[in-house]
Amino acid sequence: MRECSPLHKERLNYKPKLAGILANGIKNVKISFGKNTTAVKDAADIQNLFKDVYGQPLVSFSNEGEALNFEQKNVGVILSGGQAPGGHNVIAGLYDALKAANPNNVLYGFLGGPSGIIDNKYVKFDDNFIDKYRNTGGFDIIGSGRTKLETEEQFEKTLQNCKTLNINAIVIIGGDDSNTNACMLAQWLKAKNAGIQVIGCPKTIDGDLKNDQIEISFGFDTATKTYAELIGNIQRDANSAKKYWHFIKLMGRSATHVGLEVALQVQPNITLISEEVEAKKQSLESIVDYITDIVVKRSDMGKNFGVALIPEGLIEFIPEMKTMISNLNDILAVLEKDEKFVNAQNSEKYQIIESKLEGQNAKVFNSLPEMIKAQLLMDRDPHGNVQVSKIETEKLLIEMVRARLKALKAQGKYNGKFSDQAHFFGYEGRCAMPSNFDADYCYSLGYNAFALIQAGLTGYLSSVKNLTAPATQWKAGGVPLTMMMNMEKRHGVMKPVIQKALVDLNGPVFKVFEQRREKWALNDCYVFPGAIQYFGPCDVCDTTTLTLQLEQQKVPVAQN
Amino acid sequence: MRECSPLHKERLNYKPKLAGILANGIKNVKISFGKNTTAVKDAADIQNLFKDVYGQPLVSFSNEGEALNFEQKNVGVILSGGQAPGGHNVIAGLYDALKAANPNNVLYGFLGGPSGIIDNKYVKFDDNFIDKYRNTGGFDIIGSGRTKLETEEQFEKTLQNCKTLNINAIVIIGGDDSNTNACMLAQWLKAKNAGIQVIGCPKTIDGDLKNDQIEISFGFDTATKTYAELIGNIQRDANSAKKYWHFIKLMGRSATHVGLEVALQVQPNITLISEEVEAKKQSLESIVDYITDIVVKRSDMGKNFGVALIPEGLIEFIPEMKTMISNLNDILAVLEKDEKFVNAQNSEKYQIIESKLEGQNAKVFNSLPEMIKAQLLMDRDPHGNVQVSKIETEKLLIEMVRARLKALKAQGKYNGKFSDQAHFFGYEGRCAMPSNFDADYCYSLGYNAFALIQAGLTGYLSSVKNLTAPATQWKAGGVPLTMMMNMEKRHGVMKPVIQKALVDLNGPVFKVFEQRREKWALNDCYVFPGAIQYFGPCDVCDTTTLTLQLEQQKVPVAQN
Repeated sequence: MRECSPLHKERLNYKPKLAGILANGIKNVKISFGKNTTAVKDAADIQNLFKDVYGQPLVSFSNEGEALNFEQKNVGVILSGGQAPGGHNVIAGLYDALKAANPNNVLYGFLGGPSGIIDNKYVKFDDNFIDKYRNTGGFDIIGSGRTKLETEEQFEKTLQNCKTLNINAIVIIGGDDSNTNACMLAQWLKAKNAGIQVIGCPKTIDGDLKNDQIEISFGFDTATKTYAELIGNIQRDANSAKKYWHFIKLMGRSATHVGLEVALQVQPNITLISEEVEAKKQSLESIVDYITDIVVKRSDMGKNFGVALIPEGLIEFIPEMKTMISNLNDILAVLEKDEKFVNAQNSEKYQIIESKLEGQNAKVFNSLPEMIKAQLLMDRDPHGNVQVSKIETEKLLIEMVRARLKALKAQGKYNGKFSDQAHFFGYEGRCAMPSNFDADYCYSLGYNAFALIQAGLTGYLSSVKNLTAPATQWKAGGVPLTMMMNMEKRHGVMKPVIQKALVDLNGPVFKVFEQRREKWALNDCYVFPGAIQYFGPCDVCDTTTLTLQLEQQKVPVAQN
Repeated sequence: MRECSPLHKERLNYKPKLAGILANGIKNVKISFGKNTTAVKDAADIQNLFKDVYGQPLVSFSNEGEALNFEQKNVGVILSGGQAPGGHNVIAGLYDALKAANPNNVLYGFLGGPSGIIDNKYVKFDDNFIDKYRNTGGFDIIGSGRTKLETEEQFEKTLQNCKTLNINAIVIIGGDDSNTNACMLAQWLKAKNAGIQVIGCPKTIDGDLKNDQIEISFGFDTATKTYAELIGNIQRDANSAKKYWHFIKLMGRSATHVGLEVALQVQPNITLISEEVEAKKQSLESIVDYITDIVVKRSDMGKNFGVALIPEGLIEFIPEMKTMISNLNDILAVLEKDEKFVNAQNSEKYQIIESKLEGQNAKVFNSLPEMIKAQLLMDRDPHGNVQVSKIETEKLLIEMVRARLKALKAQGKYNGKFSDQAHFFGYEGRCAMPSNFDADYCYSLGYNAFALIQAGLTGYLSSVKNLTAPATQWKAGGVPLTMMMNMEKRHGVMKPVIQKALVDLNGPVFKVFEQRREKWALNDCYVFPGAIQYFGPCDVCDTTTLTLQLEQQKVPVAQN
């Protein structure tokens, strides 16, 4: 009936704002080199692993400095990992810069993620193709994938396919892992003197790819605004109907930036922060106590409703759960080969498992609701581990709070009504149409990536900074990927990785949240952000996250 | 930190567009009377029950006809039932008309729904109060509730409290049931010659309060746009990641207008329509067959992903399930007094239930996944019935499709991968900030309700029509509530009710869907509506639902 929604049609014509100097056109961009860099930690190991790309200087673009080299370039681009709003605009910005530099330049898109470059599956972009995807959400322009580029064999195939297509540079749009692999590829190609550059772009809705040089990963702004819209709506519903407690799990396994940003935007009654749970070594029991206490206090005030935000990865941050799950993984690895166990009823399985778990772990397992025990026994992931993302943590907490309330009621300490609704938000935000901020930021990141290519650089991450200022004042440049790395244990082996940014419990964002959460718990300070707006007043359409504004001290820290 | 989001702040200043004649100001509105009316069915019974308000004429407002009477009026307003976007604007429109007519007029808001007028809990509105709620979502301005106004005692208290406050008219904002009760109250007050008028306003996100006179219930536009935003985003994610089947349950127990409207907006692979399931007497098995067939065909095309929309009330429309649940309700009513049963393990309970269910019903029960059996045994509703809204129909279908696929795989007829994600959307849309359409429509409905009051009418529903045209061409008037009624069996007793509009399988909306669904199933015709926009081009911000456009033949029925 329709091929395109009215908003979609309008967005295709949106002209993203380019960062500062880039708006003058790619031909007017000049480059300056800063000091040489090191690594955030384990510098010697990182240098050893990335001999040829380690320690390069920070670079910045402006109208002063060395001119770029405008020889003809063919570039290949890859989308890697989970979707994030704005990926299409990175490609559009890259394409526009490339064509502005030289109409004979060619941009290839490798299909289905990193596997596309190994299997030589690609498309060649032209205006018609790109124009259909400008300012749209999703990664469907070329698809994405989770293949890791890391083996010698993969690198060989990559080189071979790039040679066939006469590709001079590869742009990898991905998160911390994908960019670590981008750097490995850059190192390998440089060592081979292959003449093929590799540039990364910082993507992830989780918001954990950030540091002194990368202010925000793209997609975080749009995704958190989408979740905040929904949760604001649910808060308004809770406050109108006054009869439900909504427990809302939010996507994000490792860091709680999403939960924290959404909490600042909507001001719910309860927000759990995984990093705090881990730092304070909170037990499941103490978390249930914390929630129950607020439920009871609100009920005493006549308010049998509320909203609680739960980070998806929570249970892995609760020390006792982490230990129990690790023990359980070992036990199940053996039991899954035991036919008698495999064919047993769930209730028998629980008994067998409890008898095999170590003392404290058995106690923890036994304390869980049946539904959660069943989820812990479901199919393992490819590494043989419990699929934590399949655990309905929001329902686990609901069940445990309900049991606690029942006990309190029996003791005459609670006289309320607890009706629950459970939600999980994730897929709703990963492919939303990018906000103006993400549309502009991504377009600039892509455009900037091409400037880094023309500067002849490799092993760099595209960097656009000063993002709480208007786009005319954004600063464009590049960061050596090794600068952000350290060594971490992965599956028992020390590996170089870009350091993940977890929520800093001493940082300004958490501090503001911490100051206010007690008030938000009992009073109803709900804020209703509403849907993302693309047209209209600037402060409605163009401002970025509260997280970034607080980090850059752009939000007056007034009381509320 | 913030009291109000930037969009919220902007929306407080939005000036809703008033329907045609109403924009000239309440003092310039004149009234014309149409022919006397009957009832949609069972006219004699309806007349007998509503002697004093039955058969009144349709009325319309324009600049010709009789002038209204502008004596001083005090009015009380009630929000009844579930939230719908725009409720605050009905009250704002009512307030503005009332104050424009005479600054000494007073508007009272009864708190917490119909119980507020019985218990005499109210607020008195003034400009400051109203201004904080203009164009916002939710019913939190005065709260809502589900108390039914229907007993003599309730009516007596209502009369008494209205007399104390010197109230001349009551406006009830609600769905079909609430407006039926509004009419009962109108009749009772008229028979008592109490001099208190009752006017209704058509609210429900379900979209089932509509007929020749009422084109759409308010909230349906905003709620469906919100769900379409989310489902469009999920489709884009499915089409990017290409690895998940998303089964999405949508709020709405009785009718599938929400599902149908959303389907037209986003063009998913599968949409189930409860009315069709009932009309064609489809079994659960045949529904699972239908879904499985599409999953297999798509998989054969290399597409192991898709999106399926499931109406919340589906299982009550599947004849065999309906019969089984009714049998189960009877059995559980007895068993729940049996201590041995109550304390039994779930697996024992299932055996006991199966032994007591009638033959075919036992077979149906037995065919269900364990999770669903457990949900069927959960707490009953206050009438002793299974709480159908607690049944995770989306997961039921996932489990049954998965089992079918496993069997097909064993037979070598399917070679794909089926990874699922389940979602339920409802609370996300009920309190969204009203779209421009709902903001304008609701404001007009409230303003118009006051014109009906000044015309001295009672037992009328506020009616604003011609809604696919610009607001300047909207037509304002009133419909006698009895005109929309018939007699239906409720809990075994025949009762007068406003006839619910179910999806018309011969109507233009379903026909368009039916023509296209086969194509949508296998091809990816996904449309991405994006977030509701309040500023910007007219066709992005101001147009209403595809359902209404198709009903009024405003959509060119092109092929897609």
